Amino acid sequence: MALKTEDQYRDSLRSMRPNVHKFGELIEDVTTHPATKNTIEGHASLFRSQHDEKLSQIVTTVSHITGEPISRYLSIIRSAEDMIANCLMKRFAFQLTGTCTGGRCVGWTALNSMFVTTFDCDKHLGTAYHLRFLEWLKNAQGRDITIAGALTDPKGDRTKKPSQQEDPDMNLRIVEKRDDGIVVRGAKVMICGVAAANEIFVLPGSAYGEQDKDYAVSFIIPRDIENLTIVEATHPSDGREGQRGFDIPNTCGGITQAYLFFEDVFIPNERVFMAGEYQFTKSAVFNFVAPYRSAIGGCVAGQGDIKIGAAILTARANGLSAKAFRDKLSQMYVNNETTFGLGIAASALGQKHPSGAWLPNMLLANVNKVHVATLPYETSRLAQDIAGGIGETGCMPSAVDFASDEYGHLIKKYMKAAASGEARARAARLVEWSTVGAGVPGCMHGGGSPDGAKLFIHALSGLEDKVELARRLAGINEEIPEPQKK
Amino acid sequence: MALKTEDQYRDSLRSMRPNVHKFGELIEDVTTHPATKNTIEGHASLFRSQHDEKLSQIVTTVSHITGEPISRYLSIIRSAEDMIANCLMKRFAFQLTGTCTGGRCVGWTALNSMFVTTFDCDKHLGTAYHLRFLEWLKNAQGRDITIAGALTDPKGDRTKKPSQQEDPDMNLRIVEKRDDGIVVRGAKVMICGVAAANEIFVLPGSAYGEQDKDYAVSFIIPRDIENLTIVEATHPSDGREGQRGFDIPNTCGGITQAYLFFEDVFIPNERVFMAGEYQFTKSAVFNFVAPYRSAIGGCVAGQGDIKIGAAILTARANGLSAKAFRDKLSQMYVNNETTFGLGIAASALGQKHPSGAWLPNMLLANVNKVHVATLPYETSRLAQDIAGGIGETGCMPSAVDFASDEYGHLIKKYMKAAASGEARARAARLVEWSTVGAGVPGCMHGGGSPDGAKLFIHALSGLEDKVELARRLAGINEEIPEPQKK
Amino acid sequence: MALKTEDQYRDSLRSMRPNVHKFGELIEDVTTHPATKNTIEGHASLFRSQHDEKLSQIVTTVSHITGEPISRYLSIIRSAEDMIANCLMKRFAFQLTGTCTGGRCVGWTALNSMFVTTFDCDKHLGTAYHLRFLEWLKNAQGRDITIAGALTDPKGDRTKKPSQQEDPDMNLRIVEKRDDGIVVRGAKVMICGVAAANEIFVLPGSAYGEQDKDYAVSFIIPRDIENLTIVEATHPSDGREGQRGFDIPNTCGGITQAYLFFEDVFIPNERVFMAGEYQFTKSAVFNFVAPYRSAIGGCVAGQGDIKIGAAILTARANGLSAKAFRDKLSQMYVNNETTFGLGIAASALGQKHPSGAWLPNMLLANVNKVHVATLPYETSRLAQDIAGGIGETGCMPSAVDFASDEYGHLIKKYMKAAASGEARARAARLVEWSTVGAGVPGCMHGGGSPDGAKLFIHALSGLEDKVELARRLAGINEEIPEPQKK
Amino acid sequence: MALKTEDQYRDSLRSMRPNVHKFGELIEDVTTHPATKNTIEGHASLFRSQHDEKLSQIVTTVSHITGEPISRYLSIIRSAEDMIANCLMKRFAFQLTGTCTGGRCVGWTALNSMFVTTFDCDKHLGTAYHLRFLEWLKNAQGRDITIAGALTDPKGDRTKKPSQQEDPDMNLRIVEKRDDGIVVRGAKVMICGVAAANEIFVLPGSAYGEQDKDYAVSFIIPRDIENLTIVEATHPSDGREGQRGFDIPNTCGGITQAYLFFEDVFIPNERVFMAGEYQFTKSAVFNFVAPYRSAIGGCVAGQGDIKIGAAILTARANGLSAKAFRDKLSQMYVNNETTFGLGIAASALGQKHPSGAWLPNMLLANVNKVHVATLPYETSRLAQDIAGGIGETGCMPSAVDFASDEYGHLIKKYMKAAASGEARARAARLVEWSTVGAGVPGCMHGGGSPDGAKLFIHALSGLEDKVELARRLAGINEEIPEPQKK
Repeated sequence: MALKTEDQYRDSLRSMRPNVHKFGELIEDVTTHPATKNTIEGHASLFRSQHDEKLSQIVTTVSHITGEPISRYLSIIRSAEDMIANCLMKRFAFQLTGTCTGGRCVGWTALNSMFVTTFDCDKHLGTAYHLRFLEWLKNAQGRDITIAGALTDPKGDRTKKPSQQEDPDMNLRIVEKRDDGIVVRGAKVMICGVAAANEIFVLPGSAYGEQDKDYAVSFIIPRDIENLTIVEATHPSDGREGQRGFDIPNTCGGITQAYLFFEDVFIPNERVFMAGEYQFTKSAVFNFVAPYRSAIGGCVAGQGDIKIGAAILTARANGLSAKAFRDKLSQMYVNNETTFGLGIAASALGQKHPSGAWLPNMLLANVNKVHVATLPYETSRLAQDIAGGIGETGCMPSAVDFASDEYGHLIKKYMKAAASGEARARAARLVEWSTVGAGVPGCMHGGGSPDGAKLFIHALSGLEDKVELARRLAGINEEIPEPQKK
Repeated sequence: MALKTEDQYRDSLRSMRPNVHKFGELIEDVTTHPATKNTIEGHASLFRSQHDEKLSQIVTTVSHITGEPISRYLSIIRSAEDMIANCLMKRFAFQLTGTCTGGRCVGWTALNSMFVTTFDCDKHLGTAYHLRFLEWLKNAQGRDITIAGALTDPKGDRTKKPSQQEDPDMNLRIVEKRDDGIVVRGAKVMICGVAAANEIFVLPGSAYGEQDKDYAVSFIIPRDIENLTIVEATHPSDGREGQRGFDIPNTCGGITQAYLFFEDVFIPNERVFMAGEYQFTKSAVFNFVAPYRSAIGGCVAGQGDIKIGAAILTARANGLSAKAFRDKLSQMYVNNETTFGLGIAASALGQKHPSGAWLPNMLLANVNKVHVATLPYETSRLAQDIAGGIGETGCMPSAVDFASDEYGHLIKKYMKAAASGEARARAARLVEWSTVGAGVPGCMHGGGSPDGAKLFIHALSGLEDKVELARRLAGINEEIPEPQKK
Repeated sequence: MALKTEDQYRDSLRSMRPNVHKFGELIEDVTTHPATKNTIEGHASLFRSQHDEKLSQIVTTVSHITGEPISRYLSIIRSAEDMIANCLMKRFAFQLTGTCTGGRCVGWTALNSMFVTTFDCDKHLGTAYHLRFLEWLKNAQGRDITIAGALTDPKGDRTKKPSQQEDPDMNLRIVEKRDDGIVVRGAKVMICGVAAANEIFVLPGSAYGEQDKDYAVSFIIPRDIENLTIVEATHPSDGREGQRGFDIPNTCGGITQAYLFFEDVFIPNERVFMAGEYQFTKSAVFNFVAPYRSAIGGCVAGQGDIKIGAAILTARANGLSAKAFRDKLSQMYVNNETTFGLGIAASALGQKHPSGAWLPNMLLANVNKVHVATLPYETSRLAQDIAGGIGETGCMPSAVDFASDEYGHLIKKYMKAAASGEARARAARLVEWSTVGAGVPGCMHGGGSPDGAKLFIHALSGLEDKVELARRLAGINEEIPEPQKK
Repeated sequence: MALKTEDQYRDSLRSMRPNVHKFGELIEDVTTHPATKNTIEGHASLFRSQHDEKLSQIVTTVSHITGEPISRYLSIIRSAEDMIANCLMKRFAFQLTGTCTGGRCVGWTALNSMFVTTFDCDKHLGTAYHLRFLEWLKNAQGRDITIAGALTDPKGDRTKKPSQQEDPDMNLRIVEKRDDGIVVRGAKVMICGVAAANEIFVLPGSAYGEQDKDYAVSFIIPRDIENLTIVEATHPSDGREGQRGFDIPNTCGGITQAYLFFEDVFIPNERVFMAGEYQFTKSAVFNFVAPYRSAIGGCVAGQGDIKIGAAILTARANGLSAKAFRDKLSQMYVNNETTFGLGIAASALGQKHPSGAWLPNMLLANVNKVHVATLPYETSRLAQDIAGGIGETGCMPSAVDFASDEYGHLIKKYMKAAASGEARARAARLVEWSTVGAGVPGCMHGGGSPDGAKLFIHALSGLEDKVELARRLAGINEEIPEPQKK
């Protein structure tokens, strides 16, 4: 079938069993329901881009299996160039949709992780997952499907391992192994873009030891599989998504994050890529982390592009020149390019894996994660600073009030400045939406917390080498060891 | 009548003409409508505190006019101690209500500004405003009313003065002077706490010259005065305020910010404190700015107290110890005490005005404003960092979903950690609410923008004195003047 | 004798036994030796100020013992106003001398600490130190002496208490108690302004328990007491102090920090204020810390004033307008006033001690210390940014080269810009001197490290109160305790 | 001759005419004089590395002209990999020498710039510089020479162009064109590593227009050419370089920055690469800036490695564990890898020039420059924080005092902690040296100021594209142009 059109994509979602809920209600058609429509429009625009001469170079590539053109989101990252293209596509996707298209990139990263992990697992344990994975992948490329990725378990009491929890379901686990497949129980939480996805790629949420081998599980399922219940989480100002008008200013994209409840879901063998091989859970997580934390710098740069644009648009609508904000803009540009650039650097300094995959630099990827957890907050603050009071918290009458017969004319009269009242309000709403509203993605903790990233940074920074450097330069001959606890 | 009870306060609001709107609808009873109920509960708790033995020391003082006990919000600030008590009360009010009680402090600051300004105006121009003001104040103290304050005009094209605007109404102005009063037209925008107020104190929005003397106007009006239409602005996640459940976790307080449209409102003379004396518009603004920017440091410190508490509560509900976050907590404490402390410093280094008022230090007040526009953002980021993914953007199923017959049990099962699912969700909601939700006040631009504060800082920092110091210390005898433009 | 003149002060130093060394050499006359002359000139200017009509209001006050005019540095701080005057004087002293006059303020803080500590000690242990202290103080005020203060011990292995050290001398201790006095052995290190002092006030370096009671010792000694050997530490670019010319651009002041070696020094009883009362070592340290960490904010603000002046002077000498650096100047002003202001706040929110002393607010004092350890570094960076390459590291030919017969004319020709080559070089040297040169004081660790300050902040910030606030606001009824270690 | 040994290198310097001065004195032998010895030892160690099996891979490459092995510092950067190798080598060189080896990298960048610029100039103006350049380069590679680079002119009054200056010599200029060469007059200032260089590559200091065509000049000269007078600038604590002992703790490397005075220096044609082609001055500067500002991130990362090592070494010598400083170390690691990584990113996102050269990404290079001007200051502060008071400003007795017969034993006794007194002092001296001493390079303004970098960032960040993005996303149809000045 090759590359789907946006309509084919929407049709593929409409043909699925409804199992997504929000605000206590089952969503019959995710493509039209206000809680999910915007994110699906965002994902649809990626399909539209596949058929645009210029943009297709960004969002498509060639399958290393079949040689056919495929969505880049279904490709294996095999070189620094591929990984750099990942960073670039993520920035582009934000610019296109104004926000996260999480129904694609997490799944993509997950499948790249399992490409490497199944290769290594087979090599060391004599399993046969890699070929099974390639079969599935080839088929998935042919179907041009959209894949969400799911790692995070509820975890319960964080001081205990999965098998030690009072309730053993607090991490997703295999409750039965059958000849033809496995049965899993538990949940995956805060999963991005599920409503926009055809399938969901599941990975273990952490590195596990032998006592937790039932939790060592990876597989791919249709989103509407039996016994899977999905509840969409809230996000800022989502109460406005049911309203008419422009209080949610951007309809080119949106974010959803779901809770997935697995009540004994059966997965056939051909879709299972790990089932008990706890020795490779660490590999699955690490091979996810490195590309994910590299490329997320592109995401927040794209997001920063929107904040910059929205802030200056509002300032101009207020009658102020961009020149008045040079210093703030400098800082915003620097923040943007820092996260973007560190992703590029992690890509460039990666290395080739025997499977043919390209593994980005783990230290730089995690350094990037630390910036991703801080710099966008400063960029948001500066956007609100530039935009003024109406942008700071969206302190304007609602779109419904703009339309009031009784006093709407007063709002329009007094909101007018260097642009019409509505244009000015829309610009300010975009600042609000992208800094304190429904457009704010969960990038700080998504893909792991900054404190987790710092653990990697400590492990990889080579402190003792630096200490030895200093000792040599200072001409110190005696040993100065780390003091021992008594 | 002395000090009102909270019920008397609610009654006073219920007895007023409905003229507040939101989402296209007239609010019949502000004390019960979901859009205004929370802020009124917050203000009511201040009245409750007046009758608490311990708390009354914070929120009440003695009238310098009558010697009677009065609300501190209706007092004249006459000493460093009074001004410090202002900072302390603001921090307390945030702790009590979780947020801003803007229907009191802006009005309070406004009346203090006009206490000084009418004194000076009378002295220089021979007017008789000060006594009129004192008469009104004595009466207001007796009635124990709640007073919002209104400064900000819509402004229109920011490159033009009020009288040069295409539409002369873009700043509030006197359209008619009668024997018994004045008629005003225009708007005041982003006015905090109007729904919770009995009266509104209006000040000029800027310093004006003679050609703009019609805009030099200050007065006090009942909130429900004829020809005044009020529309409440949106704030983050306000769509949830109509819902049941705990998605808006805090019901002890709330924020509203309104747009006030004056369609030829008549104000009787006894409530007018400036009507054309453009020479004192600057004084009115400056005498507002200094105490406001000093005491707002107490506000954001109180807000920071909530963020710290909510973040650690969530972390513990996640099963994590506060000890894991020592460094982040240090930073949050330092941010908090910095804004609080600079307000205290501005109070302590103030000076006595001939009218008897105490004027805080203008340089330190404005330095504080710059911190107020930055540090709370960092504190919010750290709160989200500590609280984890569920706190970052409130990424949890809604309270409605918690209550679902069909799958509510799954949510409760999987949200449970070191606390019940609901308690954990409530804690995380408070992090969301106070950092990216309905509890976020507009402190960056409220009371003037940080860029405005920097203008004061430049004017007051004495650059040339510092340059002379340096020249003397460096032993330079020749003059090194500022280069001249050619 | 009342208030000394600067000549009387210099004479008092010249009359002392030489016991100060630097670079392997005994300094015969500290008032003329290049290593100590500048700091003595700085201290002398404080004596000059005592006799200036305007400045005497800053540097003198009235003795609460005798009612006579005395140096403020010899006064007891008895009110918020006194403490604020401390902050102001410290800022002034930096402006006057370009740097630290550490031979006065540490001793002053030390004597204030022992005023309180002897009072409490007498009350609880029945000792009779307070009166003895007052006798000494009255006499010291009469003699108008300059007093350095000494707290920091060498400490040896930081994981062991004083009495557990391999070498028991690693903290200063009483080795003999006689009827007429005590004999002490050990060292005090990094002591500021000793060369400029007549006497040295010694305090315990930490809070000690009973096993370390020999280390609980406080006394005052003449700087030239028998068996005391003093070695001045190096400071940046001190190799230039012997050179002629303006490579050390400022001769109005300077810093010294000394190592004091006590080889069985005898101290007569009338100068001993603690000798074994380990229970009050904590008090001695705490009562030192609070005023010291409050007022040091004034120091670094004064230092910031110099950096601002020097940077702009250099920029103008380069031909650039101060206007080009508005944003950097804003940041520098804010940094300055933040440390200054927090000192004022700590002063204002202090409390009266039964002895009559005023104790500043401990939380705010320690918050200030954290800023003191960070903000001046940013101010220095900005000064170098403004001043350009010649200011950054003083990248200019030396004053000796300026004077070269052979090529000095080339240097003068090419260093000339909007000011003469020498004036431009002097301005840039002052930037270097105050940011990376001999004028940089050790404020980060002086008076205790920022990590030590954070311990106080954690202890005083009331975390559990904030958590309770949050729990109440979020409507959580269940207890969510701090997780216990297993 | 291929790759020189370190002895051959030292010999090459000894054979040159003495024309370098410092402190008013002519330096007869730069390889032994204390003012220049350390930098020459640093440069010598690069020659030593050429002959080390492992290190030669870092510091050598293959000539694209001859196919012979050459110093990487004499190579043309022809690919992303070459440019990445530049960043890596710069970090390595800092680790090897503890500081900057500026006698190599600036010259290298300069020759790469002129490789491109001569190519473009020939193409557009029909000149024949490129072949001449290649001839010289081939020869230089064969001789394995060390080349300093010189761009910065004294500039005089910064508000005037070169030809408008009162003194036309304030920028280096051609005063005579002869058949066989040109004669130049003027100066180049703050030139790094000249004492360690065999030759000096001169570039125009800025982009010039036609009226300043005499200032459009580029050439390469022997360091000891007739009529060139060199004066070394001071740097922090350089007065200690004459002393014995370890007060300058690192003797593996050092920095020098010189002022070069050209008093009518004749340069033969074969060494002239620009002489009046003002149209290509911009190109010369831009093609220098991009690689320089990319790779300098590697420098400051290497410098950060030293600071981290020195700080932890000192902490351990103090008896403290590195674990106590995890949070500070995190920040230092992040700072380090940020500048390093952004250089890698700029390298990776570069593009091929028709000449065969690789041009790094200009936006990312300049973003890096902004970080280079800020992050190292924070790393220095943290190093001083970790190291304690003795590291902060090197507050210890001098090495001469350590050796005192009279009291040296006291210093050693009391400086001892978890390491011997001398080892502890050496470690702390390395902190001082690298953060506030002679090891601090002028990276903020070297290669252009951060404000200059921001001009590039503004020009390259595509503000209008971002504004258009925002306008589309917000659904605004009307134009909102930049307000026009009236």
